[in-house]
Amino acid sequence: MSSHSLFDQAVALSAVSPNLYTGATSDAFANMVGPFGGLTAATLLNAVLQHPDRLGDPVSLTVNFAGPVGDGPFEVEATPLRTNRSTQHWLLLQKQNGEIVTSATAFFATRRETLSEQQLAAPSAPAAETLPAVAVSIRNWFKQYEFRFVHGVPLTPRQADQAADTESLLWVRDKPERPLDYLSLTALGDVFAPRIFLLRENFTPSGTVSMTHYFHATSDELARVGSGYLLGQAKASRLHSNYADQIAHLWSADGLLLLTSTQSVYFKE
Amino acid sequence: MSSHSLFDQAVALSAVSPNLYTGATSDAFANMVGPFGGLTAATLLNAVLQHPDRLGDPVSLTVNFAGPVGDGPFEVEATPLRTNRSTQHWLLLQKQNGEIVTSATAFFATRRETLSEQQLAAPSAPAAETLPAVAVSIRNWFKQYEFRFVHGVPLTPRQADQAADTESLLWVRDKPERPLDYLSLTALGDVFAPRIFLLRENFTPSGTVSMTHYFHATSDELARVGSGYLLGQAKASRLHSNYADQIAHLWSADGLLLLTSTQSVYFKE
Repeated sequence: MSSHSLFDQAVALSAVSPNLYTGATSDAFANMVGPFGGLTAATLLNAVLQHPDRLGDPVSLTVNFAGPVGDGPFEVEATPLRTNRSTQHWLLLQKQNGEIVTSATAFFATRRETLSEQQLAAPSAPAAETLPAVAVSIRNWFKQYEFRFVHGVPLTPRQADQAADTESLLWVRDKPERPLDYLSLTALGDVFAPRIFLLRENFTPSGTVSMTHYFHATSDELARVGSGYLLGQAKASRLHSNYADQIAHLWSADGLLLLTSTQSVYFKE
Repeated sequence: MSSHSLFDQAVALSAVSPNLYTGATSDAFANMVGPFGGLTAATLLNAVLQHPDRLGDPVSLTVNFAGPVGDGPFEVEATPLRTNRSTQHWLLLQKQNGEIVTSATAFFATRRETLSEQQLAAPSAPAAETLPAVAVSIRNWFKQYEFRFVHGVPLTPRQADQAADTESLLWVRDKPERPLDYLSLTALGDVFAPRIFLLRENFTPSGTVSMTHYFHATSDELARVGSGYLLGQAKASRLHSNYADQIAHLWSADGLLLLTSTQSVYFKE
């Protein structure tokens, strides 16, 4: 692991006392208001990953973005709510000035070999290397990823004969390259822009309010992916009265489904 | 609202002190171990719905099934973690004998009229009335719903030429009929059996560990659905090393998407 990468610095936490950690926001991952949500999600997961009482690997993670994270230091409270023989449930609260800015729950488990069946095949896509890297630089955090779109680039004009479609398909990986682990996979699961940006050609105030990741990938599968490209697909089922859902998947380049992720996303109008 | 229905009795809570409620499990909604998870989810949501400080309607709900709920009384702690101008984040903890059996987070908001766009159309299906009601009675909670399957009946033998497929499509509604509200929609979002039951013809120990609902339906849309059938679709993307995901949707009979739901589901082998 490249422990000196900007990503690793940004998700770093210091243990203060049992169940209490401190960290600080990173300019490199700044979004419009506060940090990139995927970075915040990874930071909260990191509190569990480095907790001495942690059992097993992450299976599910839900992060609720409750209020803006201000630039500067924050605290993360990581509380094991319940520990069973091979499973563990966590509550995570990120605070600034005593106020909760993010809450999360995480489910960890030790996993064994079972029936293994993938029902959702990776969509066909041209090889990543054959597609241009998109130079998007409105927000700092974009610069930490390499994006190569197959289709569905946000905020770009549609052709007159093109139906309104909220689906994006793209290759993505960390920039600079970094071997995939649960932290970077958590952040990569949030690289898709709000789906409303696919229906509108101009910026609309929007932001994720809740995000849930299901980690299909076991640690040996993550190791096999290494720093390769991931194929990501995201689409909305419905956008209505200020809120839209988003269903997203990330596959390895050889077609293994690593993550299923869903979001509820606010949009202004 | 039929306030004397078994469902309404089962989700009922009594306020004990600020943020603290008590309830009790209901035989009518018993599953193999403890109550039907959808009923537990609805019960936790009910704590917020009847909380004097509640703001707006539910947009997202994540429920983590941490341990078995024993027959008998329980407590629900409902804590508003953060209240903004038009949004509110909640933490919900269900306890028995001082131990956490279920945790949840909920996001509520006041919603306004905006762009409205449904991207996921309801699958075509024969009218509910033309399909036989399935008489499934292994668990008590099944008897509280009317199921009319289009395809994907769990634990039934596949034909030799049939591919392994985890998708179910079915009509479902409360039995007896009951006007749809956020409570019943929450429970209905969990009526799909574990997807592993579609791959295996025999019972495999299995259970939901985390479930997330996104409520697309606004309260006026729920009122328009009334006690009509909902069309439900559920499928898994991947089943691997003890855990599977499930992506589900519920539409009204006239094709309006009411709920997007995802689950992480344990299966034994």
